[in-house]
Amino acid sequence: MMGGISHIVVDWGTSSFRLWALDRAGHVLAERRSAQGLAVSAAEGFSTVLESHLAALSIPDGVPVMMCGMVGARGGWVEAAYVDTPARLDGLAEHAAHVPSARRLIRILPGLAQRKPDELDVIRGEETQLLALASEGFHGLACLPGTHSKWVAVEDGRVQRFATFMTGELFQLLRSGSVIAPAVADTTSVDSAGEAFRCGVDEGFAMPELLGNALFQLRASWLLAGTERASILSRLSGLLIGAELAGAARRFGLLADIALVASGPAAPAYRTALAIAGVPYVVLHDAEDCVRAGLHEAALKVFRLERSPA
Amino acid sequence: MMGGISHIVVDWGTSSFRLWALDRAGHVLAERRSAQGLAVSAAEGFSTVLESHLAALSIPDGVPVMMCGMVGARGGWVEAAYVDTPARLDGLAEHAAHVPSARRLIRILPGLAQRKPDELDVIRGEETQLLALASEGFHGLACLPGTHSKWVAVEDGRVQRFATFMTGELFQLLRSGSVIAPAVADTTSVDSAGEAFRCGVDEGFAMPELLGNALFQLRASWLLAGTERASILSRLSGLLIGAELAGAARRFGLLADIALVASGPAAPAYRTALAIAGVPYVVLHDAEDCVRAGLHEAALKVFRLERSPA
Repeated sequence: MMGGISHIVVDWGTSSFRLWALDRAGHVLAERRSAQGLAVSAAEGFSTVLESHLAALSIPDGVPVMMCGMVGARGGWVEAAYVDTPARLDGLAEHAAHVPSARRLIRILPGLAQRKPDELDVIRGEETQLLALASEGFHGLACLPGTHSKWVAVEDGRVQRFATFMTGELFQLLRSGSVIAPAVADTTSVDSAGEAFRCGVDEGFAMPELLGNALFQLRASWLLAGTERASILSRLSGLLIGAELAGAARRFGLLADIALVASGPAAPAYRTALAIAGVPYVVLHDAEDCVRAGLHEAALKVFRLERSPA
Repeated sequence: MMGGISHIVVDWGTSSFRLWALDRAGHVLAERRSAQGLAVSAAEGFSTVLESHLAALSIPDGVPVMMCGMVGARGGWVEAAYVDTPARLDGLAEHAAHVPSARRLIRILPGLAQRKPDELDVIRGEETQLLALASEGFHGLACLPGTHSKWVAVEDGRVQRFATFMTGELFQLLRSGSVIAPAVADTTSVDSAGEAFRCGVDEGFAMPELLGNALFQLRASWLLAGTERASILSRLSGLLIGAELAGAARRFGLLADIALVASGPAAPAYRTALAIAGVPYVVLHDAEDCVRAGLHEAALKVFRLERSPA
């Protein structure tokens, strides 16, 4: 049974804004999505953007808001300083930044920083996807694909180590701004079930040191062999993901048992890639469900809400 | 002793135009340089660009012109169709494309295509840098750094195999259009003698599969450790070159004896990188001298010029 609106959770990133109105059990009562990422929102005013979405859902004053993502970065609304690894996931809420508002409590969860000199790294937003998983007992290695793919090792409810790979950003840079661009022009999506993607993963995983060569070969295959643009785009994606998996194996050791936290086309693409890389056991979690659940957990704790029976 | 102007040679690439007036022994009597690369020249008219440079040097009608580079690509002045590997370097001149002109003989040397399905690749311009070297007996593996670095295996005067790495283009994409850009803003040049470059090469060569992670760490080191931007740029360059060397070793086997054909800052950077990768024997050739000498060789042959005593 659903109750009334208890609190609001928001995942506010570089390029997107997602808001859910939840009851105390975490059920979604209403939602809003927009492309009002960081740059857009800084221009419009963070408070204006947030309150306009709340007004559109008739959310009254007093309903508290828990947020995560780049909204808490320097240059965001209010900076939520990084918490250093190893970091307890259920302790993140204590470090949430306070956002001044006369209308309601607003908090932003912090990201994590890894300060070991040869593994310097930061994460902001994705850690929240692991918060609820960890509270349900998850431990092991999680893969969170994206513009900046995150690989996170969780033990005893703590993020012990993590590593970021620029896979998605490289894909965008190469498809749009490089000599490969004409070879993939007017193609829309990667076919991760097809041969081109699979071969790309295989090659990127087996020979990651040849990535810079394999990338140029995409252009050559267009010039010399007239390879279809859709195949070239899929192969590009496969090469980059395959190389990422080789890097993750180098960083974290044998990839045996992976929690894949992904939404949209990344989910089947990484599932396929992990299978090609020989990972025997992969459990898929929906990234959007996870971030919402993590924000819900944090909201219950910070706003001292009583958890109603589900 | 220098003679009068015998012929003109031109290296006409994507972003630059270089022209030399030579005597029959290949001595430079005059030269012109400009940024009139392919896009600019297509707009202004290739003939207009060439003849305006010749007029500036008072070159009379009848003096022939030998060219190489992207001017012979599809979309250039006249397409000089690729010659397939294995390809005799001293046979390239026979395949030079004829450019219609009422004023002089104008030829464009062809590039090379490698059509082996898993090693599809193209080269256009750099092969000419090897033409004169090969006629002087060079054989072995040559490294020609650049936007698209070329590694070329030459035997018995033939290009047997080659591989292109997108090193220079990745460097430009990442420094200007990625999340690394703010971490290297306002820096001008790579210090290839410094520690940051050397460490980058070492890591890129030893762990090329971690490149996508190491790239993000450049941003993290700026955010978390306040690393100087100049160091980050040098490390970025080192990482990419190191990964290229690892790839070349995978493609061509042990790198023992390399002809490095380079000009400008690429020469010391690759020399340092090859030393870090443990290559015992590197001979440096100036890339500009090599392309001019190669064009001169081809001009003597095609225009049936008598070689004067040097």
